[in-house]
Amino acid sequence: MSADHFTLIHRDTSCGARLGSLKTAHGMIETPIFMPVGTNATVKAMTPEDLLAINAQIILANTYHLYLRPGHKLVKKLGGLHNFMNWQRPMLTDSGGFQVFSLGDLRKISEHGVKFQSHLDGSYHVLTPELAIEIQEDLGADIIMCFDECPPATADYNYVVRSLEMTTRWARRCKDAHTRQDQLLFGIIQGGMHHDLRARSLADICSIGFDGYALGGLSVGETKEQMYGVMEACASMMPKDKPRYIMGIGAPEDLVEAVWHGYDMFDCVMPTRNARNGMLFTSQGRINIKAKIYEEDERPLDPECGCHVCRTYSRAYLRHLYRSGEILASNLNTYHNLYFYLDLMRRIRESILENSFTAFRHSFFEKSVYNQKN
Amino acid sequence: MSADHFTLIHRDTSCGARLGSLKTAHGMIETPIFMPVGTNATVKAMTPEDLLAINAQIILANTYHLYLRPGHKLVKKLGGLHNFMNWQRPMLTDSGGFQVFSLGDLRKISEHGVKFQSHLDGSYHVLTPELAIEIQEDLGADIIMCFDECPPATADYNYVVRSLEMTTRWARRCKDAHTRQDQLLFGIIQGGMHHDLRARSLADICSIGFDGYALGGLSVGETKEQMYGVMEACASMMPKDKPRYIMGIGAPEDLVEAVWHGYDMFDCVMPTRNARNGMLFTSQGRINIKAKIYEEDERPLDPECGCHVCRTYSRAYLRHLYRSGEILASNLNTYHNLYFYLDLMRRIRESILENSFTAFRHSFFEKSVYNQKN
Ligand SMILES: [Zn+2]
Ligand SMILES: [Zn+2]
Repeated sequence: MSADHFTLIHRDTSCGARLGSLKTAHGMIETPIFMPVGTNATVKAMTPEDLLAINAQIILANTYHLYLRPGHKLVKKLGGLHNFMNWQRPMLTDSGGFQVFSLGDLRKISEHGVKFQSHLDGSYHVLTPELAIEIQEDLGADIIMCFDECPPATADYNYVVRSLEMTTRWARRCKDAHTRQDQLLFGIIQGGMHHDLRARSLADICSIGFDGYALGGLSVGETKEQMYGVMEACASMMPKDKPRYIMGIGAPEDLVEAVWHGYDMFDCVMPTRNARNGMLFTSQGRINIKAKIYEEDERPLDPECGCHVCRTYSRAYLRHLYRSGEILASNLNTYHNLYFYLDLMRRIRESILENSFTAFRHSFFEKSVYNQKN
Repeated sequence: MSADHFTLIHRDTSCGARLGSLKTAHGMIETPIFMPVGTNATVKAMTPEDLLAINAQIILANTYHLYLRPGHKLVKKLGGLHNFMNWQRPMLTDSGGFQVFSLGDLRKISEHGVKFQSHLDGSYHVLTPELAIEIQEDLGADIIMCFDECPPATADYNYVVRSLEMTTRWARRCKDAHTRQDQLLFGIIQGGMHHDLRARSLADICSIGFDGYALGGLSVGETKEQMYGVMEACASMMPKDKPRYIMGIGAPEDLVEAVWHGYDMFDCVMPTRNARNGMLFTSQGRINIKAKIYEEDERPLDPECGCHVCRTYSRAYLRHLYRSGEILASNLNTYHNLYFYLDLMRRIRESILENSFTAFRHSFFEKSVYNQKN
């Protein structure tokens, strides 16, 4: 891609928040943006038509899962991920790094790559930077990620040092292996919860040069304070002319915080996974739809929400579906939760354009249903 | 309802098949018709929008299930089943009879009614003809059913005699209890696999007088031969000026057989339940989408099907979704299977109008992917 794939449209005068436009092979994305997670080439409980209806601009798919099943060669043969799953808007794939470390069994890490056992059938695999790129080229997402090591939150300082150094060498190998000019390649910054190591990783990765930069290694069990600390420490050092992505976060309050610091892209399973468990995000805070108090509640899930579910169904019906174990419960709950997230991002973009994001953030936390602590 | 709720539009000159029009409080239904089953106030894995898209004219909901959860009083309070589940087209509820006998534990049957334990929580309930009508009036379906005893296929002759006599007395009590003029009330004919008892039950139920007549007690473990035998034996005795419903059947071949004998309405969980198990109906016969042979199959599920799923996705993708346990697998498979059923009924209606249903039936079975034996 040309160097001008990212355009900084506006910077909020009151804070670090930025409004941007990211050009991909399947169209433009407005940032800040939230990307629904479509692990197995489907955003769980959503049809592509649902995703269009809530105006999802870009979705994410997981390289680790698709490599194991159905396999990247098959996806390539069937015309790539876009055709396979009937999604013609932009798509991002992660590198498989995070899942290898969180789902793979019996990992053996070496400079060459990671040997692991599939969580599906116990078969052995070796994922290397070169293979992660090859898989992602075959899947054909518009934005692909470098293969990185994601150490646990409990890793000690020296381990994190060695790990981030290897992640830098892997990033270089990824860049060298990458051939598809229609894909953007993003680098991943590691360094655990150590701000000095984050700074070092950031400098190293940026010196290689990528189309965008991501903070990896968050949402791995750290406290909110630690997460926000890393976010803040890195924000001023991130290149201004490239999209900034925080991987795997987060809760609505995390998105607001991250945008305030100047981050542009996010993904998280929270809205979709919580939906399937009956945990719903509303303008009044989180609610558990299975609660007895909703038994006879005729009101919409969220009276302030404009989504199809809130305009159509009562809380009593949603509770009934959930208690009955009906598939429609997952469909409707997911639809609403993702709408909530995407609508939040839309309102965030609006307020940035009006230089009022600091006030937006203040008001968001003042309602105190979403705050930085819970 | 007025006596002219059912209009016989045309009778195929080549056989017993009839084309009819049934007027309900929520609109007209063209017969012969298949009714998708929406047990818990949702047709599993379908949205109301999906049902409209495949042109479902009427759906069925289960009194037994809705009585136990969320309860008919709650549904009434929330504006009836149509509003509760956002379905404004016609709806039919069964009486709970079949489920009491197939799902309820520790049944104790008396002239008064049936005492049973809920399969959900073990609580005790007594369902009587009067209560079955009260529940169905509260749910508010357009067509409701008499409460009947549905004896097992293994019941002996004398048991079936006593049972059908009681079912007749219950039918009279149902008619007496029924007050809502905007609902059609159908009687149910029992009699097991004994043609003489079917004739007797039929005469008894018809002498009471209902808005439509149903054959109950089929699809309870009998052979296809027995089922078709009862169908055929009753066909000539069923009133010509009222809709004729066979409850709980069936496979595509059963529908074709039943229509040929002059039956008008059908319901069955087969298309929806099979879909969730990956068993799909196609113009080439039944296929199991999880089979290895579909691994790299780029073709639509059914190249002759015009449904959204077949126009959009490959067999390989559907197989991948099924193997990955994705909710979308249930959504897409159900959509196709129900489309297949409703499209079959549409083609059946078309051929009746052209007096060519006997040829249609012949060609249907000649393909031999669906036949009367399997
Ligand atoms: Zn909503
Ligand atoms: Zn189809």
